Amino acid sequence: MKNIELGQEAITWPKGFQASACAAGIKPGRDDMALIYCTQSASAAIVTTTNKVKAAPVTWDQEIYAMTPYKRACVINAGNANACTGEQGLEDAKKTADLAASLLELSPDEVFVSSTGIIGVPLPMDLILGGVEKLCRTLSDSNEAGDQASQAILTTDTKPKRASIEIEIDGKPVRIAAMCKGSGMIRPNMATMLAYTTTDADIEPELLQKMLAAAARDSFNMISVDGDMSTNDTAIVLASGLSGVKVGSVTTPQGRAFYEALKAVEVDLAKQIASDGEGATKRLEVTVNGAKTREDARVLSRSVVESPLVKTAMFGEDANWGRILCALGYANAEFDPDRAKLAISSEKGSMDLFKDGMPLGFSEEKASEILSEPVIVIDVDAGLGDETATCWGCDLSYDYVRINGDYRT
Amino acid sequence: MKNIELGQEAITWPKGFQASACAAGIKPGRDDMALIYCTQSASAAIVTTTNKVKAAPVTWDQEIYAMTPYKRACVINAGNANACTGEQGLEDAKKTADLAASLLELSPDEVFVSSTGIIGVPLPMDLILGGVEKLCRTLSDSNEAGDQASQAILTTDTKPKRASIEIEIDGKPVRIAAMCKGSGMIRPNMATMLAYTTTDADIEPELLQKMLAAAARDSFNMISVDGDMSTNDTAIVLASGLSGVKVGSVTTPQGRAFYEALKAVEVDLAKQIASDGEGATKRLEVTVNGAKTREDARVLSRSVVESPLVKTAMFGEDANWGRILCALGYANAEFDPDRAKLAISSEKGSMDLFKDGMPLGFSEEKASEILSEPVIVIDVDAGLGDETATCWGCDLSYDYVRINGDYRT
Repeated sequence: MKNIELGQEAITWPKGFQASACAAGIKPGRDDMALIYCTQSASAAIVTTTNKVKAAPVTWDQEIYAMTPYKRACVINAGNANACTGEQGLEDAKKTADLAASLLELSPDEVFVSSTGIIGVPLPMDLILGGVEKLCRTLSDSNEAGDQASQAILTTDTKPKRASIEIEIDGKPVRIAAMCKGSGMIRPNMATMLAYTTTDADIEPELLQKMLAAAARDSFNMISVDGDMSTNDTAIVLASGLSGVKVGSVTTPQGRAFYEALKAVEVDLAKQIASDGEGATKRLEVTVNGAKTREDARVLSRSVVESPLVKTAMFGEDANWGRILCALGYANAEFDPDRAKLAISSEKGSMDLFKDGMPLGFSEEKASEILSEPVIVIDVDAGLGDETATCWGCDLSYDYVRINGDYRT
Repeated sequence: MKNIELGQEAITWPKGFQASACAAGIKPGRDDMALIYCTQSASAAIVTTTNKVKAAPVTWDQEIYAMTPYKRACVINAGNANACTGEQGLEDAKKTADLAASLLELSPDEVFVSSTGIIGVPLPMDLILGGVEKLCRTLSDSNEAGDQASQAILTTDTKPKRASIEIEIDGKPVRIAAMCKGSGMIRPNMATMLAYTTTDADIEPELLQKMLAAAARDSFNMISVDGDMSTNDTAIVLASGLSGVKVGSVTTPQGRAFYEALKAVEVDLAKQIASDGEGATKRLEVTVNGAKTREDARVLSRSVVESPLVKTAMFGEDANWGRILCALGYANAEFDPDRAKLAISSEKGSMDLFKDGMPLGFSEEKASEILSEPVIVIDVDAGLGDETATCWGCDLSYDYVRINGDYRT
């Protein structure tokens, strides 16, 4: 993943993709629906929430993916999650796909549907169906159309999130572009996160699915804003094949290059989500090295990123290594404080905090300076092995409480 | 546990106990050390943190308990946790016990030591030893002495926490009294929680230990303020035997009565801790009925109590059943939203929120009225079995962020 240069191109950038956005009236005064369309039958991949409470569109997407892994479109709405809406919810998801399919001359099982927003309220189907009509009429392969789509899917996000890359395989360019939304209810295993990736690589859906699952494990599944996990999380990849570049398994150089590029894009989106966590003033990156197992490294890094006491200390720009150590100590993983080392770093420098079971003398002033930056890295060396993992999160601020203390009403 | 009437008597209330408190100068301007002393060799029981990072006094207490389960005294200081202080920390804990033992004419292994406060800073031993001298000089069996002790052990707590009960066994009175501190870093398995229970029951230490472990499982281990778990948590029981009432196993009526009384006292302390969670404006009680296993019931109730989104919704007095359901859905336990029922209640009434996979129509106004109370009960019927569990916690407010954003510096 080193030396991979990422851009912010729209999802219409890879060959074969169009997009549109519209104000359907679900969230007054702004665009609230988006459509992604592939001119070809695209290889598709999808990973979704593991919450036992699943929104209707997630069930729809899983059902149609089981029927065929080739897709043509995604219809997305913000403002209403269509979750906990019973049979009606599933019918509404189907109606949405049906109308898009009819207008775009597709089969309904080629149309993914995603929803995000309030839970337990039936979709306003008159607005949704009106929106689908507008979306299908205004598809375009312009950058603007892709940009608008990336804005339309947002909820409490403060900014759109995009990442893109072009790599050369066998002398030919292959493009990947992605957009996502998500800022509250974000945790490992993804939560109220919707992510869409388009590529013009020519790749089999089974292989694409494997690559997405692996990339998600090290990106979307390693972010945590508040430890909650939503009913609607979905990450989708569509591959048009129009670059003419055949991508095989990761055991080939071509497959490896494509996978690394895909993962770099997803990791970049994950970081953008962490930075835009509800009320966040800083992004935290916690890397655990020297863990006994990969799973231990994940569990340890998550435990630090999810600790409310660590998060509030970072908000207060306080190098409270005791809270970091404490979070490592209660994580369900092998950990020995006498062998662990802790350090913090940012654009302003780095500093060792803890070693040999004891805190190191350090300048609080210098530590506060390091912690004043918008991206804080916490490095843990567990001293027990060779495994490593990184988890991304954010601090816990007054604004988190304000945003979530009165979201629904 | 029904019809058990609890009081707020001091730990000096059961026969054979004395206490003292003093301002040792660790926390300026207030009492910061306390001593509990038993005039007899007392049967003792102790449960401590499961954090892999353990404070020196916890190690000391475990070591001396392994040597003998009979104790005479506890020395407690607030303001400094003596955690992450290496070999020096253990020596300091030992020195504290040594001095108390010498002044009270005990063996050092009869003296428990507890510390709470800042991590990673060596104990100010001149202040601590000066404090021990004062404490040993001023022991008294008065209520005032017990009351002062319950104040001296506090850190970010806003009020002292006491619970007491007198029961009759074979026509004779047996008294139990307890005090504790704890408001931040509280979670299942206890965190920065110190609890001391005295009783004049005559009970073998092995049996007392079993009863404390069982009572802690349903009290201290079922509270959560912020999901963090500290390095110092300790709950201790001392039984003087001076009531002259012999208490046997819980299979006897006498043993059962004593155990229920002990558990009632510990549950009451647990609730007081939850109510006094850092920044808390409300206590949450989440009871899960109808779970498939007891462990499932615990995991489900904890997941709701620990969800930052549920906690902020309660702060906002918003009946956001979707967040409750969501937290149940991602808990690592069997759960089926289509069989679950949700209700809220308080002194202002009760209201069903969710059933048969769908929200019930309810008055937001009435719901807000219910949620305006200081104690909110969330009832979950999982519909999958007969097991039940209750977890206590609190809402998440601006003040939690304020208190923890700048605690150390």
